[in-house]
Amino acid sequence: MELKEEIAREVEKETGIPVSGRDVEGTLSALLATSHFWEVVQRARLPFNVVAATVDLFRRRGWVKVEDDGSLTLTDAGKDMAGREGTEAEKDFVCPTCLGRGVFWRDLEELYRRFVEIAGRRPEPIKEYDQGYVTAETTVSRIALMADRGDLAGKRLLVLGDDDLVSLAAGLSGMPEEVVVLEIDERLIAYINEVAVEKRLPVKARRYDFRQKLPEEYVASFHTFTTDPPETLEALEVCLGRGLLSLKGAGCAGYFGLTHAESSLKKWNEFQRLLVGKFKVAITDIIEDFNHYVNWDYLLPSLKKNFPFLKFPPRLNWYRSAMYRIQTLERVEGLKNEEAECELYVDKEALIYG
Amino acid sequence: MELKEEIAREVEKETGIPVSGRDVEGTLSALLATSHFWEVVQRARLPFNVVAATVDLFRRRGWVKVEDDGSLTLTDAGKDMAGREGTEAEKDFVCPTCLGRGVFWRDLEELYRRFVEIAGRRPEPIKEYDQGYVTAETTVSRIALMADRGDLAGKRLLVLGDDDLVSLAAGLSGMPEEVVVLEIDERLIAYINEVAVEKRLPVKARRYDFRQKLPEEYVASFHTFTTDPPETLEALEVCLGRGLLSLKGAGCAGYFGLTHAESSLKKWNEFQRLLVGKFKVAITDIIEDFNHYVNWDYLLPSLKKNFPFLKFPPRLNWYRSAMYRIQTLERVEGLKNEEAECELYVDKEALIYG
Repeated sequence: MELKEEIAREVEKETGIPVSGRDVEGTLSALLATSHFWEVVQRARLPFNVVAATVDLFRRRGWVKVEDDGSLTLTDAGKDMAGREGTEAEKDFVCPTCLGRGVFWRDLEELYRRFVEIAGRRPEPIKEYDQGYVTAETTVSRIALMADRGDLAGKRLLVLGDDDLVSLAAGLSGMPEEVVVLEIDERLIAYINEVAVEKRLPVKARRYDFRQKLPEEYVASFHTFTTDPPETLEALEVCLGRGLLSLKGAGCAGYFGLTHAESSLKKWNEFQRLLVGKFKVAITDIIEDFNHYVNWDYLLPSLKKNFPFLKFPPRLNWYRSAMYRIQTLERVEGLKNEEAECELYVDKEALIYG
Repeated sequence: MELKEEIAREVEKETGIPVSGRDVEGTLSALLATSHFWEVVQRARLPFNVVAATVDLFRRRGWVKVEDDGSLTLTDAGKDMAGREGTEAEKDFVCPTCLGRGVFWRDLEELYRRFVEIAGRRPEPIKEYDQGYVTAETTVSRIALMADRGDLAGKRLLVLGDDDLVSLAAGLSGMPEEVVVLEIDERLIAYINEVAVEKRLPVKARRYDFRQKLPEEYVASFHTFTTDPPETLEALEVCLGRGLLSLKGAGCAGYFGLTHAESSLKKWNEFQRLLVGKFKVAITDIIEDFNHYVNWDYLLPSLKKNFPFLKFPPRLNWYRSAMYRIQTLERVEGLKNEEAECELYVDKEALIYG
């Protein structure tokens, strides 16, 4: 068997996640481009657990050395191996202006300034609710994207979970007719409602756990929804189902992020089958690395420290997600508005906190 | 019934293409932003036939006037209607650097310069083969995208149909190990092979009609394919099937464009179901408006002139497509390498040439 395939099988066995020779090459290619573990994860665009296990396997085989400061260097044996495998350093052609998002908020500078001011006073993310927020540039870029696609101006927007404060940015843009936030965290609800009143924004937040039924008054009520679901198939189905239930009918849009860090392409495929098959929507955009998450406090203390390089904190916003936009072709039939009972948050591909 | 829904039903009846109230709003919104018909089509991101029929219906209802120079102005009645419907002018937040592509070829200027020189001597597109090529910026951006995603350096690339000359740009980049072009047009085959020899590029072109079986030596032979298929479901299935057959196995990638101009979102959904269901690949990127086509000579003389505004030529590269990237999860099973017999090129959503 080819070396990369052999390593793939080993990492697959260790992680329980499907791994291809190409994935092994992806990690090696990223290691040729950077010595910072978290950047390797970001550049490889693979599940965190796969990259961590692959890097550690490289370490055990003497191809990678972990320096005292946590940086990863390829040993001579490692460089030889990469050469024999024909693997080249990962290349980067991401647009320097929009950072790969395709949209740019150049006409929204005032919005950006006002949003940064507000966001500075936000509640910090907590593990209990799987929180973690995106950079202000990301949030304002989301506003630009929704506006560019005709999903914001004059529209009713539902925000399902809002640690990113998209609702406030949307309200500050002056574009949507109304924004409703459904959120589990009382701190965020209070904060969003407080700012909305203070700034006279058409935004209201109320408490909601997405395992509950969608409140009846919100069924078939919105033009657009945005959400950022936990990445198990189960949670994705429930979250997206709530979002789709909230939409008025044909020609409405939904936005959400999906990572590589916690979702293999096998899961991407299964989720996409759900979207285009069961939910019968069209996927209109998948924009890689659109959402950049600010590093969150509970990451390092909580991660299981299986590997020596996991002791060192990220020096970049490594956790990113692709932005999906979907559009409805018809009112989605056969979606039941009922409670979801199950444990939704964790699968083998998730970041595991100890 | 709501006005936009009523218009949608009428346009749907006329064109035989599914149309939503949201689609009607899209055309109206674009008309509020530009008076140039071809820009309305581009901004509305809808089938050409739907936009043309909607604009003409607006004209017949007295909402749009066609000026002597072909420009479209909303009448006072039209503006009133838009106001009552709450429709706002289409907004544009596309990144000015990468034009929405997310990748930028800043480190490929030398490649760009050399490619422009070569492409200047290319054969002109002809109707017989449904040709039409993209701008040099688009071609070089495709190289940047494939390189960024790890699908080019050291890889074997198959180009299925190459009026865009992607093969030569890839060869000039010095990145791929080998590039094979399968192309129906003898003029292009000769031109590509001539330049390849002259510039010593690892590129070879040979004649192939994609309705034929894929030559056996190319089955399971490539890391990456790129193609630009005619947009009937039938042609998409045959073309993508050929591409997937050519790939080595798991972790390989395919690139192709899909328009709104000739494909409704209903078709997008059906095609996506084919990709993720039958073909079992993951869609990793859908990048709106990535591919910009240079206006082709046979457009206006050949289009059926049902509508008065169709007499006037485009002033911008209005015909664009979204770039899809797919990645294989396994060697695709159950794909038969056999001849396809049927007429593949035209459905109700296609541009109809007289």
